[in-house]
Amino acid sequence: MCAEQYLMYRTHNCGELRNSDLTKQVELSGWVQKIRDKGFILWVDLRDRYGITQLIFDQERTSKEVIELAKTLGREFVINIKGTVIERASKNLLIETGEIEVLVSDLKILNASKTPPFTIENESDGGEELRMKYRYLDIRRNPIKDNLILRHNITQEVRKYLSDNSFIEVETPYLIKSTPEGARDFVVPSRMNSGEFYALPQSPQTFKQLLMVAGMDKYFQIVKCFRDEDLRADRQPEFTQIDCEMAFVKQQNILDTFENLVKHLFLNVKQIKLDKFPVMTYDQAIEKYGTDKPDLRYGMTFIELNEVAKHKDFNVFNKSELVVGFIIKGGDSLTRKEIDKYTEWVKRPQIGAGGLAYMRLQDDGSYKSSVDKFYDQSDLANWAKISGGEKGDILFILSGEKDKVRTQLGALRVHVANELNLKDSNVFKPLWVVDFPLLQWDEETKTFHAMHHPFTSPKSKHIDLINTEPAAVRADAYDLVLNGNEIGGGSIRIHDKEIQQKMFDCLGFTKEEAKKQFGFLMNAFEYGAPPHGGIAFGLDRLVAIMGGNEIIRDFIAFPKNNSGRDVMIDSPSPVSEEQLKEINLKTRQ
Amino acid sequence: MCAEQYLMYRTHNCGELRNSDLTKQVELSGWVQKIRDKGFILWVDLRDRYGITQLIFDQERTSKEVIELAKTLGREFVINIKGTVIERASKNLLIETGEIEVLVSDLKILNASKTPPFTIENESDGGEELRMKYRYLDIRRNPIKDNLILRHNITQEVRKYLSDNSFIEVETPYLIKSTPEGARDFVVPSRMNSGEFYALPQSPQTFKQLLMVAGMDKYFQIVKCFRDEDLRADRQPEFTQIDCEMAFVKQQNILDTFENLVKHLFLNVKQIKLDKFPVMTYDQAIEKYGTDKPDLRYGMTFIELNEVAKHKDFNVFNKSELVVGFIIKGGDSLTRKEIDKYTEWVKRPQIGAGGLAYMRLQDDGSYKSSVDKFYDQSDLANWAKISGGEKGDILFILSGEKDKVRTQLGALRVHVANELNLKDSNVFKPLWVVDFPLLQWDEETKTFHAMHHPFTSPKSKHIDLINTEPAAVRADAYDLVLNGNEIGGGSIRIHDKEIQQKMFDCLGFTKEEAKKQFGFLMNAFEYGAPPHGGIAFGLDRLVAIMGGNEIIRDFIAFPKNNSGRDVMIDSPSPVSEEQLKEINLKTRQ
Repeated sequence: MCAEQYLMYRTHNCGELRNSDLTKQVELSGWVQKIRDKGFILWVDLRDRYGITQLIFDQERTSKEVIELAKTLGREFVINIKGTVIERASKNLLIETGEIEVLVSDLKILNASKTPPFTIENESDGGEELRMKYRYLDIRRNPIKDNLILRHNITQEVRKYLSDNSFIEVETPYLIKSTPEGARDFVVPSRMNSGEFYALPQSPQTFKQLLMVAGMDKYFQIVKCFRDEDLRADRQPEFTQIDCEMAFVKQQNILDTFENLVKHLFLNVKQIKLDKFPVMTYDQAIEKYGTDKPDLRYGMTFIELNEVAKHKDFNVFNKSELVVGFIIKGGDSLTRKEIDKYTEWVKRPQIGAGGLAYMRLQDDGSYKSSVDKFYDQSDLANWAKISGGEKGDILFILSGEKDKVRTQLGALRVHVANELNLKDSNVFKPLWVVDFPLLQWDEETKTFHAMHHPFTSPKSKHIDLINTEPAAVRADAYDLVLNGNEIGGGSIRIHDKEIQQKMFDCLGFTKEEAKKQFGFLMNAFEYGAPPHGGIAFGLDRLVAIMGGNEIIRDFIAFPKNNSGRDVMIDSPSPVSEEQLKEINLKTRQ
Repeated sequence: MCAEQYLMYRTHNCGELRNSDLTKQVELSGWVQKIRDKGFILWVDLRDRYGITQLIFDQERTSKEVIELAKTLGREFVINIKGTVIERASKNLLIETGEIEVLVSDLKILNASKTPPFTIENESDGGEELRMKYRYLDIRRNPIKDNLILRHNITQEVRKYLSDNSFIEVETPYLIKSTPEGARDFVVPSRMNSGEFYALPQSPQTFKQLLMVAGMDKYFQIVKCFRDEDLRADRQPEFTQIDCEMAFVKQQNILDTFENLVKHLFLNVKQIKLDKFPVMTYDQAIEKYGTDKPDLRYGMTFIELNEVAKHKDFNVFNKSELVVGFIIKGGDSLTRKEIDKYTEWVKRPQIGAGGLAYMRLQDDGSYKSSVDKFYDQSDLANWAKISGGEKGDILFILSGEKDKVRTQLGALRVHVANELNLKDSNVFKPLWVVDFPLLQWDEETKTFHAMHHPFTSPKSKHIDLINTEPAAVRADAYDLVLNGNEIGGGSIRIHDKEIQQKMFDCLGFTKEEAKKQFGFLMNAFEYGAPPHGGIAFGLDRLVAIMGGNEIIRDFIAFPKNNSGRDVMIDSPSPVSEEQLKEINLKTRQ
């Protein structure tokens, strides 16, 4: 080994020097964040992952050569300096190194830099596309860098908690088998098995169930999954799951275990102590919030008004299956124009409501509604009473077919919260939604399909309903909802071959189809499958919410855009004819 | 929530009851490992991941119904029992629960099992193919289960050590871009970008370098990588790497950091304290062991004999570039027949030596060699002296062209170690091999290619040799070798655009090719790339060696066979015509 190998680039990083280091000889390396050149004196902010340290080049104390070289520096140059830690004349108490600066004696330029296409600042002037193309510069910015560090901290704590609770992380394969069930698979042609394909996993679902049959007892994995879907905004073709499964458990064991996981994460990563999570059934969530992922950071729970709104001549309400509304605290201050905008919003085809009725609860104790023609003050007083509204509030009301109107009002509730800034990204309101329907009716195909997946266990008391009243069957299935987002979902699985067969029948799988796609799982169930269940969390979403931001792309190091492209590496891209020949494929014309 | 949800399947697992639990009422669940039916008394070994607990059903103390049900149990049935912990009449001190048994009062069969196709024992009667087809049963066996737990423990400790040392785990994308450099890529057709393909990463090499440009400073990831190679024995198309990169480092920083990682793993996972790792140059390794991954668990270092073997009339030696051998301690006990077998072994075309010469160092102090016709006792005494051999040893000698004969003798050294059982799987001998050649001459294509990859930095003192004497250029490249296996390898990377261009020139990349394949990395290098370097470990191999076994398949939950098939799920498999249409591909005829 030659001595050169032992040379270092730094004695400290750019975030660690303090007043206690005064007079120390130090060596630093990093990027030039900012240069202030006063002629006889020159300051450089030197940046690395850990922070910023101010360097000072001073005609009186720094050699002429070093000053001359310093004057050639530009933004984002990579430099290495030696110098002495001195006290700053004007301290900056906003940064941790703000009491000191380094008087530079030696300067080496390790690499020059072109002027970056956008500023490396917390608020960058780069647009989304430019930032993605130069993602390696975007990551130098604190917000993105901090997001990636947050992600690291969260995954470390997930692993710590689960390992401490006897879970074993097992890697399941990425080159698996295509199954038409669920979303579209990405397929991978096999060269060695001509004409055959692997598929990339949409989730390790069957493998984690096999691991339970294999006796692993408690499994987890932080794992990439793949879905070839037409991308909606903020969906990625590859995404990361915290995937978990346990044997010999009932639903409550799983809720307890993973409620504690989420509490552990918030406590250890964000120093936030969460209370016990509320539990709500699917039916309650739909009734009270018009969605199975209610945001509990704000109120506006639904009030059903049928009994106080259907006794008069107002036909719109009378012919509606459900009249339902919510109170906006202080909403009487909304102007007529603002209310008109909400009315237009609910009438857009994406929402599809016929109109929006409202009642103001005025400060003088009287009521003013959009349906005054049909209802008198005593009617309206009833509405106020039943809805718990107070002076200064407003009641928004929709009516129509039960399922539809709840969905519409749920969307309006979220929209109002957005408009009135009721979503505090520093407040975290988790809840469990349980007792999901087992099956979902598909209007298009006129068949039932599995609401979660075909391995979800019906509630034992509902098993007999599967053939007679499928829509009424509830499952041992649960979602963990956080601030209006589903961040996790799972179920107790079917471990009984006959119930599984019943389920496949109900979903319209022939015996052959079921055998072809899931035969290995069905076979495994013949050899002593334990009762088991699990849950999977969407890591990208969880990290984004914990980071106080809902754009998941900002929490993924190298995300793809809405067309599934990585614009930095320019992928996907054509491959050579030779490569196609090797895998025995050609492009259709 | 109904009360049923709160029922549990167990109060304890099958590995935790002890004498201190006597008289406790317990509930256990698990698999029936073994049944001994004495008519009036019946014992069942109940197994789960954590251990085995003996259950006792006793005519005098267990109800008739329960005994009757117990008599219907078969191997691998999943059962749930309630009972009382009692002292065993005949204790089994080989297992941790061996002092107690559970007197069963209630028994429930949770799931029956067909008779498994092989025994669930440490030494199974199942052949490789059967075990792979029923991998979920194979994993129930202790050796495989323990391997997966070892793998979990190792990855947890890797993450702990690296996180504690400020490394950030960053997930890099799986859907990337195909590059013809290196091994063959698996490609993934893009449906949304018709005619275009993603590729699965062979390693995150370029992304980790981009993360250094991005200022992440210290990166790691435990990540799946993919290579579409014709599979040699014990190679997998998907494999796992511990991938690491650091900025502002010299080679020695990296060696120190990762030597300490490996020491941390051995200490914390296996309670073994490793000494400082020896460092050997590539040239030394080749000279002394005929390989760049020497196994240091045994001696047999090479002794060059040119100066004491080329002065006589033995033309075989005289016309050889190199005469070289090694001492086998106690090898004089080898019979003539055994030596003949070694001779045949080296003459096989896979090795290709002309023959094997030897010299016995006999107990009476005399020498007996296969070349006595040409060399007298004083010549042979010189050989003995130079080789450090002692009475009772044997010296094996090969001769020929320098590079070839070293490779042949290196192979013979490993073969002798295998034959004489010199490889103790409980002994661990790591070493660093450094100063690898930058370039490797390819006889077939008559070109140089990169020994590691095109981003490896030449030693700074050798940069000028790249154009004039490429074969002499040494790189800042290093391998970590353990017990004759390369378990890690890495290098300092080129961070200078011009040296990178020089390297591409030398490798015969045109500017266009380099730009097309690595343009985004070259672009990134324009914006302030720091000096950086890294290393990647093959996790599968590392875990296998730490587990004392060299078959990596035994350390992967769901491995593929030598044709890249998963025989359990029967993958790869054909996909529907419809799926092919969607990705705009068809099979060639």
